[in-house]
Amino acid sequence: MRRIETIEPFRVMQLLERAKALEAQGRHIVHLEIGEPDFPTPPPVIRAAHRQLDAGGQWYTPSTGLPELQQELSRWYMREYGVSIAPERILITPGTSGAFSLLYAVLLDAGESVLLSDPGYPCQRNFIRLAGGRPVSIPVTPQTRYHLSADLVDRHWQDGTRAAVIINPSNPTGTLIDERELARVAACCAAHGGYLISDEIYHGLTYGRSAPTALAFDERTIVVNGFSKRWAMTGWRIGWTIVPEELIDPCRRVMQNIFIAAPTLSQHAAIAALKAEEEVERMRQAYDRRRRFLLEALPELGFDVVVEPQGAFYIYAHVGRLTRDATRFCWRLLEEAGVAITPGEDFGRFRAQQHLRFSYATGLDDIQCGIRRIADFLKRAESA
Amino acid sequence: MRRIETIEPFRVMQLLERAKALEAQGRHIVHLEIGEPDFPTPPPVIRAAHRQLDAGGQWYTPSTGLPELQQELSRWYMREYGVSIAPERILITPGTSGAFSLLYAVLLDAGESVLLSDPGYPCQRNFIRLAGGRPVSIPVTPQTRYHLSADLVDRHWQDGTRAAVIINPSNPTGTLIDERELARVAACCAAHGGYLISDEIYHGLTYGRSAPTALAFDERTIVVNGFSKRWAMTGWRIGWTIVPEELIDPCRRVMQNIFIAAPTLSQHAAIAALKAEEEVERMRQAYDRRRRFLLEALPELGFDVVVEPQGAFYIYAHVGRLTRDATRFCWRLLEEAGVAITPGEDFGRFRAQQHLRFSYATGLDDIQCGIRRIADFLKRAESA
Repeated sequence: MRRIETIEPFRVMQLLERAKALEAQGRHIVHLEIGEPDFPTPPPVIRAAHRQLDAGGQWYTPSTGLPELQQELSRWYMREYGVSIAPERILITPGTSGAFSLLYAVLLDAGESVLLSDPGYPCQRNFIRLAGGRPVSIPVTPQTRYHLSADLVDRHWQDGTRAAVIINPSNPTGTLIDERELARVAACCAAHGGYLISDEIYHGLTYGRSAPTALAFDERTIVVNGFSKRWAMTGWRIGWTIVPEELIDPCRRVMQNIFIAAPTLSQHAAIAALKAEEEVERMRQAYDRRRRFLLEALPELGFDVVVEPQGAFYIYAHVGRLTRDATRFCWRLLEEAGVAITPGEDFGRFRAQQHLRFSYATGLDDIQCGIRRIADFLKRAESA
Repeated sequence: MRRIETIEPFRVMQLLERAKALEAQGRHIVHLEIGEPDFPTPPPVIRAAHRQLDAGGQWYTPSTGLPELQQELSRWYMREYGVSIAPERILITPGTSGAFSLLYAVLLDAGESVLLSDPGYPCQRNFIRLAGGRPVSIPVTPQTRYHLSADLVDRHWQDGTRAAVIINPSNPTGTLIDERELARVAACCAAHGGYLISDEIYHGLTYGRSAPTALAFDERTIVVNGFSKRWAMTGWRIGWTIVPEELIDPCRRVMQNIFIAAPTLSQHAAIAALKAEEEVERMRQAYDRRRRFLLEALPELGFDVVVEPQGAFYIYAHVGRLTRDATRFCWRLLEEAGVAITPGEDFGRFRAQQHLRFSYATGLDDIQCGIRRIADFLKRAESA
């Protein structure tokens, strides 16, 4: 099989296309499938972009990013987490997608492997395959809050394993890893001579407690983060990765080639984003209201939320009481109830047909409408 | 050797760093090494970006790009070249760098090869290696205007060769390939069941004649182009690739994963760029004045321009009359004359120590100052 044939599409895209076709026919669809903030980019960021447009040329920045942005991020790590990170270890990338392409290009040789959780972010597998590597998907359960544990990492580590990835809070489950367990995973990766890659893109979108950066536990951890989620800046394509000293030069070599640099305007806008704390907090509170509404409404309808999600904007629900075929269930919900939800199969194979992912990156009114529609749909199905 | 060790840095970066260090000490340096337009992005593009910032959210576009931009580019191909391209074949990428990462991810399996010219754009080799492929560098001479010919492509094509790349006008030589030869190269690649990849990033920056798109000769050709050079939009990271029907779906799968989408604001700005014809023409005329000045001045100093460059903003000069070590010569010019030029070694191995690349993406005053300094340097060297 050629490599390109191993690259899976997002399966939910077909569902999304069908949703758009239905909308084009005049139907109202409730979107609980999309992993993109519904909020526009905060005004202070837009204002900073206007200023930068007027300030002059939009030339390349250095490959590793605007030094000013690296410094602001370094200060932000101190404010946000109380950890000290040298600015030159913070590499500015075109989104976290760019960061992962970069990291696997640097870390992997043909056939080497990376440990992932199943369920997990679907692009991870493809990033690794595109770099010639081998994704190893490890089933995770409510027992570990749907996260890799040090024990799982240790048991699956082999010759040629180079890293383990933790997404915390998790996509698709919204769950936080236990802090002590995260420290143990970091230690386990280090003991094997590899890296923990901590995907912290949903940091800041946590409710009730905050997530520590994995860098607090181990200097050798690789952190990936970006402005897309917390700062509602998806279309700006701007993120970063923090790497240990020994990886700075290899990363720079790859960045010079594959990106040249991240978008200049977005880098300037990102500096302003780091100061937009009030706007970010308002969005977080809105997400939390939606989360609490769904956590109350979903179990009553038969969706079991086994581990309470404390972050991101996702709820991973077990649908064993409602169906044995989550994919078909999602398609029926779309066609018959006008509600779009992502089926579990998009996030892996393990118990995929027993799970769905609800995203609450949609206004509360629409979410409430979606819940009413699902309730009606289930009532109709019951009486049929 | 691990893959990451095969990824070469831009050698000229060290020279550039030294140039910046000298500038920090208060010295004036003439920059004839940089391959980036000195012009700021044209005002109509900036205005369009302001409007888009005010128009609302900066969400993701579809992975393959804003449909409106694809359509405008399709119309532009008709206006510019008289060729008809279906909009869905035009995939919007984060710069041409993004386009090449994408194409090699789609086309190559481990160990497969791509034919390149030596000298050529240095990133090409690295893109191919990062995709697990094997770059085959083919020495080219003034005989073929420093381009691959159908004969060269045919002779070097092997099992596992998937494509040949033509950069027209060429970086580093600024030369245009003979049109009939380009048609023959396209036919040769097709006959071998592979692809011609035509890098047309310097199209529009041609002097005295224009370059036809390779798509005019063969529908199966893959074209790469972008807004960085002709439209002076480097920091916007926006380009495109045109692929044959059969590659659209594989490309979309990869794009969904590695980019999600190109920067939203840049895509809107690009639509305005396609209409900024006057501004583009003014820049082209300024480049041409610089080119003509250099083409007169350089031979008098002993730099032999064997094939007249008719495009891009580069002059590739043979320095056999002045030195046997072009790299050392460049370093001495920087240190002793304050003029930065890229040594041939950045573009390959073939006769690399006998060549330099002058870039005229620098104001005419500075270029004239640079020429005076080089003349003085050579006079001092002669009398020493």
